[in-house]
Amino acid sequence: MATNSIVDITKLSPKFQDLYAKAKDFLENDCIPAERIYNMQMGKGEDRWKVIPQVMEDLKAKARSLGLWNLFLGVEYGAYGAGLTNVEYGLIAELSGKAIRIMPEAMNCSAPDTGNMEVFAKYGTQAQKDKWLVPLLNGKIRSAFAMTEPLVASSDATNIETNIRREGNEYVINGRKWWISGAGDPRCAVYLVMGKTDPDNTNRHRQQSLVIVPADTPGITVVRPMQVFGYDDAPEGHMELIFKDVRVPVENIVLGEGRGFEVIQGRLGPGRIHHCMRCIGMSERGLELMIARVTDPSRRTFGKGLSEHGTVVADIAQSRIEIDQARFLVLNAAQKIDEAKAKGAMKEISMAKIAAPNMLLRVLDRAMQAHGAAGISQDFPLAHFYASARTLRYADGPDEVHRNQLGKSELKRAAEIVQKMKEQKAKSEELISKL
Amino acid sequence: MATNSIVDITKLSPKFQDLYAKAKDFLENDCIPAERIYNMQMGKGEDRWKVIPQVMEDLKAKARSLGLWNLFLGVEYGAYGAGLTNVEYGLIAELSGKAIRIMPEAMNCSAPDTGNMEVFAKYGTQAQKDKWLVPLLNGKIRSAFAMTEPLVASSDATNIETNIRREGNEYVINGRKWWISGAGDPRCAVYLVMGKTDPDNTNRHRQQSLVIVPADTPGITVVRPMQVFGYDDAPEGHMELIFKDVRVPVENIVLGEGRGFEVIQGRLGPGRIHHCMRCIGMSERGLELMIARVTDPSRRTFGKGLSEHGTVVADIAQSRIEIDQARFLVLNAAQKIDEAKAKGAMKEISMAKIAAPNMLLRVLDRAMQAHGAAGISQDFPLAHFYASARTLRYADGPDEVHRNQLGKSELKRAAEIVQKMKEQKAKSEELISKL
Amino acid sequence: MATNSIVDITKLSPKFQDLYAKAKDFLENDCIPAERIYNMQMGKGEDRWKVIPQVMEDLKAKARSLGLWNLFLGVEYGAYGAGLTNVEYGLIAELSGKAIRIMPEAMNCSAPDTGNMEVFAKYGTQAQKDKWLVPLLNGKIRSAFAMTEPLVASSDATNIETNIRREGNEYVINGRKWWISGAGDPRCAVYLVMGKTDPDNTNRHRQQSLVIVPADTPGITVVRPMQVFGYDDAPEGHMELIFKDVRVPVENIVLGEGRGFEVIQGRLGPGRIHHCMRCIGMSERGLELMIARVTDPSRRTFGKGLSEHGTVVADIAQSRIEIDQARFLVLNAAQKIDEAKAKGAMKEISMAKIAAPNMLLRVLDRAMQAHGAAGISQDFPLAHFYASARTLRYADGPDEVHRNQLGKSELKRAAEIVQKMKEQKAKSEELISKL
Amino acid sequence: MATNSIVDITKLSPKFQDLYAKAKDFLENDCIPAERIYNMQMGKGEDRWKVIPQVMEDLKAKARSLGLWNLFLGVEYGAYGAGLTNVEYGLIAELSGKAIRIMPEAMNCSAPDTGNMEVFAKYGTQAQKDKWLVPLLNGKIRSAFAMTEPLVASSDATNIETNIRREGNEYVINGRKWWISGAGDPRCAVYLVMGKTDPDNTNRHRQQSLVIVPADTPGITVVRPMQVFGYDDAPEGHMELIFKDVRVPVENIVLGEGRGFEVIQGRLGPGRIHHCMRCIGMSERGLELMIARVTDPSRRTFGKGLSEHGTVVADIAQSRIEIDQARFLVLNAAQKIDEAKAKGAMKEISMAKIAAPNMLLRVLDRAMQAHGAAGISQDFPLAHFYASARTLRYADGPDEVHRNQLGKSELKRAAEIVQKMKEQKAKSEELISKL
Repeated sequence: MATNSIVDITKLSPKFQDLYAKAKDFLENDCIPAERIYNMQMGKGEDRWKVIPQVMEDLKAKARSLGLWNLFLGVEYGAYGAGLTNVEYGLIAELSGKAIRIMPEAMNCSAPDTGNMEVFAKYGTQAQKDKWLVPLLNGKIRSAFAMTEPLVASSDATNIETNIRREGNEYVINGRKWWISGAGDPRCAVYLVMGKTDPDNTNRHRQQSLVIVPADTPGITVVRPMQVFGYDDAPEGHMELIFKDVRVPVENIVLGEGRGFEVIQGRLGPGRIHHCMRCIGMSERGLELMIARVTDPSRRTFGKGLSEHGTVVADIAQSRIEIDQARFLVLNAAQKIDEAKAKGAMKEISMAKIAAPNMLLRVLDRAMQAHGAAGISQDFPLAHFYASARTLRYADGPDEVHRNQLGKSELKRAAEIVQKMKEQKAKSEELISKL
Repeated sequence: MATNSIVDITKLSPKFQDLYAKAKDFLENDCIPAERIYNMQMGKGEDRWKVIPQVMEDLKAKARSLGLWNLFLGVEYGAYGAGLTNVEYGLIAELSGKAIRIMPEAMNCSAPDTGNMEVFAKYGTQAQKDKWLVPLLNGKIRSAFAMTEPLVASSDATNIETNIRREGNEYVINGRKWWISGAGDPRCAVYLVMGKTDPDNTNRHRQQSLVIVPADTPGITVVRPMQVFGYDDAPEGHMELIFKDVRVPVENIVLGEGRGFEVIQGRLGPGRIHHCMRCIGMSERGLELMIARVTDPSRRTFGKGLSEHGTVVADIAQSRIEIDQARFLVLNAAQKIDEAKAKGAMKEISMAKIAAPNMLLRVLDRAMQAHGAAGISQDFPLAHFYASARTLRYADGPDEVHRNQLGKSELKRAAEIVQKMKEQKAKSEELISKL
Repeated sequence: MATNSIVDITKLSPKFQDLYAKAKDFLENDCIPAERIYNMQMGKGEDRWKVIPQVMEDLKAKARSLGLWNLFLGVEYGAYGAGLTNVEYGLIAELSGKAIRIMPEAMNCSAPDTGNMEVFAKYGTQAQKDKWLVPLLNGKIRSAFAMTEPLVASSDATNIETNIRREGNEYVINGRKWWISGAGDPRCAVYLVMGKTDPDNTNRHRQQSLVIVPADTPGITVVRPMQVFGYDDAPEGHMELIFKDVRVPVENIVLGEGRGFEVIQGRLGPGRIHHCMRCIGMSERGLELMIARVTDPSRRTFGKGLSEHGTVVADIAQSRIEIDQARFLVLNAAQKIDEAKAKGAMKEISMAKIAAPNMLLRVLDRAMQAHGAAGISQDFPLAHFYASARTLRYADGPDEVHRNQLGKSELKRAAEIVQKMKEQKAKSEELISKL
Repeated sequence: MATNSIVDITKLSPKFQDLYAKAKDFLENDCIPAERIYNMQMGKGEDRWKVIPQVMEDLKAKARSLGLWNLFLGVEYGAYGAGLTNVEYGLIAELSGKAIRIMPEAMNCSAPDTGNMEVFAKYGTQAQKDKWLVPLLNGKIRSAFAMTEPLVASSDATNIETNIRREGNEYVINGRKWWISGAGDPRCAVYLVMGKTDPDNTNRHRQQSLVIVPADTPGITVVRPMQVFGYDDAPEGHMELIFKDVRVPVENIVLGEGRGFEVIQGRLGPGRIHHCMRCIGMSERGLELMIARVTDPSRRTFGKGLSEHGTVVADIAQSRIEIDQARFLVLNAAQKIDEAKAKGAMKEISMAKIAAPNMLLRVLDRAMQAHGAAGISQDFPLAHFYASARTLRYADGPDEVHRNQLGKSELKRAAEIVQKMKEQKAKSEELISKL
């Protein structure tokens, strides 16, 4: 970033610059070197879902001691938060994307915990905060957000069908969820479950509620891990869950009945940007790997080093351009959120949300191609990055939905544009009439 | 295919039409329905590399009884072969691509066995044929082709470094190979190993030899399965192997010392086309899944069925165009091979080899996007298809190499074009001079 | 084409092969050399619309003497026609595209005359044929088709607003048309005018009629030539016309009142394919120019010939692939029309209509880029080709409309696909139940 | 711009904000309304090269009175300059791109005068400044820069062949130039001519010199206007010129013999950014026209307004994203020039120079498509914009050259990246060794 002048780190506060330097050091000297040992310490077979690599807990301790902890919570979260702006946290998130499987969790800044902590901090009662937010902020437990369902088109959240029925002082939950990220983790202690308390409400955005469900509540079955390409992303995983007559006390409602939509809307905005900034970091890592590979003197083809082939050079140039363009778009959205909240930055968020993952996929594809077979293997992070990035083209709203919203938002300018054109035409005719 | 008139199946021989109808029936009523049970019968954990699903052996028996067996060997292989033209086999291969993990193997037409059988049939001694070709043709054993190495840029095969040293009546092999497809299969009985017998030969294309190595020869270590994205493709796998002082008798040489390059050149041509035709089948399957998904009445977003969104319709149209274009290109190459052998069809093969996998990736990407999260999961074959297709952009020569060869081949037309332009210019000036 | 085996010219009839050879010779030794003198003989200033270069009449005479005349009329037009199949004529049209401004007209095979002659031949009364078709077939007059209007979205032809009112034995025409190709030509003697005779008909496809309007009928004003990028395409031009109380006898109706839509539907199918095949020829010319340019020894940059730059070679390879793919698609559509008429080949025509012009634009763009500034200038035909090709992305139906129709046509397969999947699922479950 | 927060106009100086507001008002209320009358006042036929539309002189007077004059000269040009930063001038240039044929010239900020004025201001003697810079700054004369030649690949400037021979106190110039923009303008009084004074110098970058040649010097022939697509861009034009024994006094050398390369290097940097920012403005205009067109209630197809078609909405969204991405890239380069001079911003300039014109072409293509035939005609500025934008993909260095430089610049990071990876690997192994 330091070389990109529009958002110039050297112009941010000295305090942030210091934090950023620490984060960079932590990334390069701790997190990236830990990638291999993390894989080695993972459980085998069924133990994949039971064992947390020790190195992760070591890194968490170190990150916390360095002040690299819970940085995602902005100043609006008061004492809970680190007080960073979205631009500032975005720059940290970019760094963490370079070691996506290690650094976000090590800093207690990984999805879906971040969004869930925001929900608790923003909408939770004091009791809910005490019980769930505090251990989450301390990195002692993890959490999941149970929204997506297999049987409906979940990209339109009003389709969610899980039933949440009140019976006396309890809610009774019945439904099937899948792609519940983090629900495979043995530390995952709590789910935020989205479902319908009022399925017949004529206002489709008032049918849903969000309830807090402890992971050990009877009636919950973890059916299986879903695979992303061939990855199961253990130990967190993306699980399919069945809720059968799962009962929780009515105090476990978040914000109130019928307000589920309101909560998820509030949850999503900045989180999308964090994903996008991590995409930037992932793409920079991909490009670095590509540069290292094509300049490896042992890799020569047809009498030339790989980097002497004109198409390889052109691919690198194109990646450089695309990465920087996407970064500016995402930082712009972050800055807009800082100025106008997520609600005032819908358009900018949509733009970043579409552009960043698509860019990342292109950059990674070029990097994989330059690596040959190695590029798609477990010896490099490229293919796993690719698989994760691919999910971002539909997670939190598919490209198509964001593009449609963005296009419609542009179309709202029509009246103003047409009016201006009319005036210009009138002036033009006036000029001509004087000829 | 029947609807595409350039290569109109109804114009091919009645005998082939009958075979094609059988293959289509076998695909749809046996192979696709077997996909789930195949997965269920696979081994778990380490048993993934030990168990062959019973359904596969059942399907092999059925395919053989139907005459759907070893169809890849053309008329030039005499009694060994089925006598199909490349166009005809190409059409069968297209079908088999729709159930890529099942049908090619069930018909004893799966890589790398097909190429290896061609090598034995074309270049093998009678003893080599008796020992290895016969059981391969009978589907009793499987085989692997050990060329790619981790430490060099294998896209230029002259870089191969494995050492094959003659000592008395034996060759001693030392080297490291990876991405050796099929080497994980418990039935894999033999490797064809590429290495250098004459590393100092000034002709870089005479340094290599190919030797036959029984899989149980001492000194061979299977290090690990390589992963394609997250898939290990058990039980066949793509294995990393170490050859340490592996000894085979000198009779195990194929064709003769220094002729390894000649053999692999002969091996590759038609095989590339088979891959390409399977790509067409895979893309048709992808499009069918997409069509089924977007017309599923239970999947509505924002008040519309998915197929009512204009961008979805446009995506389907674009896929239809791209698939048909690629199919014609591949069939054209097949026909050219039929007419002029692979050597006379280099340009057409390169074109197909570049176009088909890239097309397939685009079509699958659109299909995955229409499926949302389901599209990249184990519940649909799309993501696994994608991963396999991605390997084809560098296997048997990366896009870059083929594009370079193709471009240079076009540039050879320059002299003729320039000469024609000169003559046209002269005529033009003559016309003008008469004004 | 001779090198492309799917549609192998050497397999077509000897008679056609002879005609094709003549056409190729005429292209290369007459038409391309005439391009410069054609430009020189054009009128200057207002004379651009008055003068027909003499070389064109010379070429017409030669083409006719060679039997290269009116080849577009297929066997269904009986004595009027040359009896070529659509595939055969397509191959001739490909050749003529290489000298698009010269050869089609020289062979009396240029739009819009071809479509208009088809209308007269297919739907005309004997009197209409005698008066207009005969001189058109003899290349004595030219014609125009007046459909598009400035004030409505003409891509949906039901929007056409020109009024055709019957008064006694006359039709009275009032309306404004533009982009009326050929209407600038001093030889243009007749317009086919599309308008509404029955604007209130509840069947939107029965409101229109087509009437024959001699170009010298009082009440017609040629307002101005429309420009395609900066080209006015004189002398034919694409004119804006006003029809004010233009009167023609009722005998001038084509086919009958309310049947205009039927006529234009019949007119369009094969004509679209002819455009597409000319696109293939134009793209081949573009690629030839690119190859000649980048191998010009006097054009070296940074120590290399242009053709030694890897990206240039890759661009040429990509163009080669794209041209051949599009050619196959178009020839496939032509063959389908031969077999099933245009109506049975709607899908294939749409595919070709979308793919060919888009391909051509990409190929030309690469060729222009390789030429630097020269590429967009009057010294090479590339930019003019580009401008013409660009019109084909909306002429005779914009990409969007064809893509939508094609996508919907694919979606009609949904029921059959879903049914097949259901059966496969049932079989799969049966297999599993026996485990 | 005001809505884009990264470079937020409201954070720039009040003085600039005032200037920007004036420029915007001048654009919308004077320049755009003047487009039609400018075309009407142009000469016809040969007079195209003789007449300057009166409205242009009126607008120049108004711009000057508003302080919108010579804004391109930054603070480093002292009293000559307006003192704007590159970011500030970039934002003005963006506005002027929206009326590209009117506003830059009206503000005396149009190429090639801007670059030529920079040359005089930076490298000229006092006498040269007095004679040429002063009237240029006053908008009394115009100028041209004569570098490109038809017979060599001018994208590598060392190929220039025009001979400049010293004879006594004179230079004698012989050569052929083309694409000399502005040389058609009757007000064009002076050329800066690049040629070789020392063709045998072993340092290829010391062979060239730049000399000042009054346009009326004997021996200069204006051969013809070059066409950009079909546009001749009269009255400025892009002319082909012959210099035959053209003599100028030795005082007309710029900076000194052999220093031509040094001068053109100094001339190009910021100018490229100005082109890029005008591209942004042109693309915004294109998008505005598209929005107005597709929301025009009179343009309905198949029962829907154009803006109700999903693909149209998606196209608009995509254009919005691409425009903003490119704008940020260009503003970033501008800011980098402000901080580190053009020399320190080579990479950023290359990125902007590649990205902006390519983006503009895509945006305009979509806008043209939405307009149908009207989009490529003289009734909208889109096609003319397109033609101009297309030249920017090779002018001032083709995409290929910039991409190659940029890619190589990225590759220079290899050593640092590889070193970092080595250290990370060492740390990783240390961690593992402690297991």
